[in-house]
Amino acid sequence: MPRTKNFCKQEVLDKAMELFWTKGFHATSISDLVTHLGINRASLYDTYGGKQQLFDQAFENYRTVNMNRVKDFLNQHDSVKEGFYNLFEQAIDQTLSDKDHKGCFVVNVTTEMSPADETLQNVLIQHKKQVELVFYNFLEKGQESGELNPTKDLKSIAALLLTLYNGLMVVAKIDADKSQLISSVDAGLSVLD
Amino acid sequence: MPRTKNFCKQEVLDKAMELFWTKGFHATSISDLVTHLGINRASLYDTYGGKQQLFDQAFENYRTVNMNRVKDFLNQHDSVKEGFYNLFEQAIDQTLSDKDHKGCFVVNVTTEMSPADETLQNVLIQHKKQVELVFYNFLEKGQESGELNPTKDLKSIAALLLTLYNGLMVVAKIDADKSQLISSVDAGLSVLD
Repeated sequence: MPRTKNFCKQEVLDKAMELFWTKGFHATSISDLVTHLGINRASLYDTYGGKQQLFDQAFENYRTVNMNRVKDFLNQHDSVKEGFYNLFEQAIDQTLSDKDHKGCFVVNVTTEMSPADETLQNVLIQHKKQVELVFYNFLEKGQESGELNPTKDLKSIAALLLTLYNGLMVVAKIDADKSQLISSVDAGLSVLD
Repeated sequence: MPRTKNFCKQEVLDKAMELFWTKGFHATSISDLVTHLGINRASLYDTYGGKQQLFDQAFENYRTVNMNRVKDFLNQHDSVKEGFYNLFEQAIDQTLSDKDHKGCFVVNVTTEMSPADETLQNVLIQHKKQVELVFYNFLEKGQESGELNPTKDLKSIAALLLTLYNGLMVVAKIDADKSQLISSVDAGLSVLD
């Protein structure tokens, strides 16, 4: 029954992602995983190889799903400014409405584990480049449509917007005041004017 | 010999701060502390109360020292834009030249431990307010001197600059390209124009 096995494996990965995202890598013990995932210790090692390997797969899963989601979300917008505003507002809403205020898994992993783990560091470098490219391509549409001034340095703006997003995902963990977070978004997006 | 004891206590606190900052709270074991601080387990518990209490003191120490440093650093500048540029550049330089790329201890603690620990959460909320006030007061000087347009919303700009700083301290952990980080600073500080 390979389909059933695959389905279960994905479900376990999702649960592992949730736990690592909430608690962080180091604070998550094997016992926590066994309890939260509903599988026994032997199955965890047999199927995934161990805590590190389970983390790697759960983190890859998160990155892939989110990258596609961000790309699709932005491309639903004709206006660049509206697209970024809505993307940032959605990220803020998700963090504030989440009882654990988990923020962004990539940001949390970066501050907890970078740059000590070289393999992970390369993954994070690649991920950053990919998100910046998604932002850059979307900004380019704005220049083509005439919404953005053709003299704007899109590479710098893409880097700034990713930096701003990272900062928002830190601040939103300690500030439940949406209006203040949004005022940072507004001030930041004024670089597009 | 109270002076000798006090000196040693501060030295141990500094070493503890360095270790918690590099490894994070959860990844730092009591054994790590004993090895790194050069005191035995009994002294650690007798003098500080335990790992959590030692962390609390080391973190308070970092926040106080840094808050005063940031305030003094900004106030050495007549130009607001130059003050923030130099502050951000210094933070980037420190992160990039540090072999462990530790970034900012407050940012790392926020993403690792907030909002699960209520006492710590209140500490982080207060710290954020204090830094924003330091930024706001410095921005106000720029409005008084005529460098900044009097219509600028200084509260939003102070919040944005703190968000940008947080973002830079995440990105600098995975991006060793100073020029790209500085281009984000330039783009962000254009809100002051």
